[in-house]
Amino acid sequence: MTASNRVTIRDVAKRAGVSVATVSRVLGGEYPVLAATRNKVVRAVRELDYVPNAHARALSAARPGAIAIVVNSVAVPYYALIAQGVEEQAAQEGRLSLICTTGGDTGRELSIVRLLREQRAEAVILVGSVVVDDEYRERMTEYAHALAAAGSRLVLCGRPPLGEGVPALVVGFDNTGGAHAVTAHLLSAGHRRILYLGLRPGHTTSDSRVAGYRAALAEHGVPADPDLEVEAEFDREAGYAAMRRRLAAGPPSFTAVFAGNDLVAAGAIQALREHGLRVPDDISIVGYDDVPPAQDLDLTTVHLPHDELGRTAVRLALGRLTPGPPSSGPMDGAGSARVLTLGTHIVVRGSVRRLGPR
Amino acid sequence: MTASNRVTIRDVAKRAGVSVATVSRVLGGEYPVLAATRNKVVRAVRELDYVPNAHARALSAARPGAIAIVVNSVAVPYYALIAQGVEEQAAQEGRLSLICTTGGDTGRELSIVRLLREQRAEAVILVGSVVVDDEYRERMTEYAHALAAAGSRLVLCGRPPLGEGVPALVVGFDNTGGAHAVTAHLLSAGHRRILYLGLRPGHTTSDSRVAGYRAALAEHGVPADPDLEVEAEFDREAGYAAMRRRLAAGPPSFTAVFAGNDLVAAGAIQALREHGLRVPDDISIVGYDDVPPAQDLDLTTVHLPHDELGRTAVRLALGRLTPGPPSSGPMDGAGSARVLTLGTHIVVRGSVRRLGPR
Repeated sequence: MTASNRVTIRDVAKRAGVSVATVSRVLGGEYPVLAATRNKVVRAVRELDYVPNAHARALSAARPGAIAIVVNSVAVPYYALIAQGVEEQAAQEGRLSLICTTGGDTGRELSIVRLLREQRAEAVILVGSVVVDDEYRERMTEYAHALAAAGSRLVLCGRPPLGEGVPALVVGFDNTGGAHAVTAHLLSAGHRRILYLGLRPGHTTSDSRVAGYRAALAEHGVPADPDLEVEAEFDREAGYAAMRRRLAAGPPSFTAVFAGNDLVAAGAIQALREHGLRVPDDISIVGYDDVPPAQDLDLTTVHLPHDELGRTAVRLALGRLTPGPPSSGPMDGAGSARVLTLGTHIVVRGSVRRLGPR
Repeated sequence: MTASNRVTIRDVAKRAGVSVATVSRVLGGEYPVLAATRNKVVRAVRELDYVPNAHARALSAARPGAIAIVVNSVAVPYYALIAQGVEEQAAQEGRLSLICTTGGDTGRELSIVRLLREQRAEAVILVGSVVVDDEYRERMTEYAHALAAAGSRLVLCGRPPLGEGVPALVVGFDNTGGAHAVTAHLLSAGHRRILYLGLRPGHTTSDSRVAGYRAALAEHGVPADPDLEVEAEFDREAGYAAMRRRLAAGPPSFTAVFAGNDLVAAGAIQALREHGLRVPDDISIVGYDDVPPAQDLDLTTVHLPHDELGRTAVRLALGRLTPGPPSSGPMDGAGSARVLTLGTHIVVRGSVRRLGPR
């Protein structure tokens, strides 16, 4: 790489027979360039083994410029959209990015973090709901110290912060606030019997949403009813199966459903339809996340700033942002410094009917 | 890593106070294990810095066991689902996998392939539709030789094969066959005026689908009408915009739509609805890919074996499969060896109405 770094953009321009500005435009990829011109430049870059400055650090032997994001699965839109935000910001900062998936397996997560530490990734961004227990805190604390020792930064995204003194940065979103708002939206439309579909005791994401749901009910003087809190994993199949079971057990004792996320909502809507119940005429429903199925289902939901979560994680890792003061955000289990919380908001579509005389 | 490799699974079992079989079960991640037991094992693995055999190669200094998949974007379900197949098969083969995204930028692709070559990835899998021109063939040929020289294998997935003698493996799917079948499905339901929405001249994926569409029309004696072939990029927004423009230009001159993929179909359906046209009562529509929006839209479409494409790419790369003879498949531009083609099939849902007296 040392030799190739001596090649300059001027050499490339000369070889391609175009101006330096044109080379810059082609490499930047932001302006329209004629295909023939683009090809000439790309060929010259290859022939001279030219490394554009923006990528030079990422390509150096120690590879300090790579930013890695570790998620359960890219087939889940929540993860894919955050990963996309990470990659866009990384590209803008001249870094290459890698996505690694664990399939939810702690052993694979451990292998991946070790590999990234060995490769001296500039930052490792861990995303997603977890069961916060002593084992989890211990594991994350160890990752943070091991990565810091190798010159890498650990960023937790959508996960609760660790204790004081642990070298980890945290970016989250107002999970509880979004759940509160969307429940209040159903209450304002006259609904009093609201089924929460997606209970997962111990999982941070669902726990925060249930907390927002219960708080909104309490504020409106509606007693919480354990019979209206139903367990379901956060995917389409689980939402479908849980709603089918509920409907098979007897006529619905609810007029509205708050699904733990949009995938759960999609499954629940399918089960409602198969049972001859129309949305929103017979049953109202809201979701959470605002990922693709929501638009096609005309589903009222809570918008998560996926792209901004990914971008913020990169900016935090590169020291472009200063995280808030200790205990700043409404993240569960907060109480440590270095937390940045992004807002959520409702997207109103057509899946909620107003009840009552109006 | 040398020291830690001397730690055996027996040491871990002893430290955790469980049997070797239990450690194996926890590390395999395939059987249910009590959380408390799992935690004990994971803690022992960490404390002893134990590297499970399956991951040992991937974690060695030369890192030959990492399998990389390079796609445009993980926010596009087509790519995300293939990447998921790659990762599942890689995990099953005891390899770690990495996903890299280019954002469709040739410069970033080049940087990524260089990085992977430097890191001696065991295989590099490139996925997705391309414009096949001389520049493309030259670039891929160079990648193939450079990776082969570093001991890596190049696998092209859903892309046409390169020339004879280029060390690249190819796995594709029967793109044209699926388009032929779904067009024939519309023709059998009595449709004669079928709009193809998603023309992208020069792009391999769309070109193959248009070829299948035209072949099916010809077989049914329906003349091809250039006015019924409409350009659109392969995303939701493009499908929406193209259908809006078409409807604004005058009453629909077609009874059915073949959308280039399911995202284009989702956008087109939204535009049809906003124009007061119902699916399938007024206009029938089919898509391609069978990705998540298809189910929620009750859309008849062509199922792509995403998962199997990803898995096959890994199996090919690791020499577990022998590719077919030269010119075996219906991939466009075929004519070289080492091509493996997977089948596609229609998934019939509720978006097509039967026309005529029946």
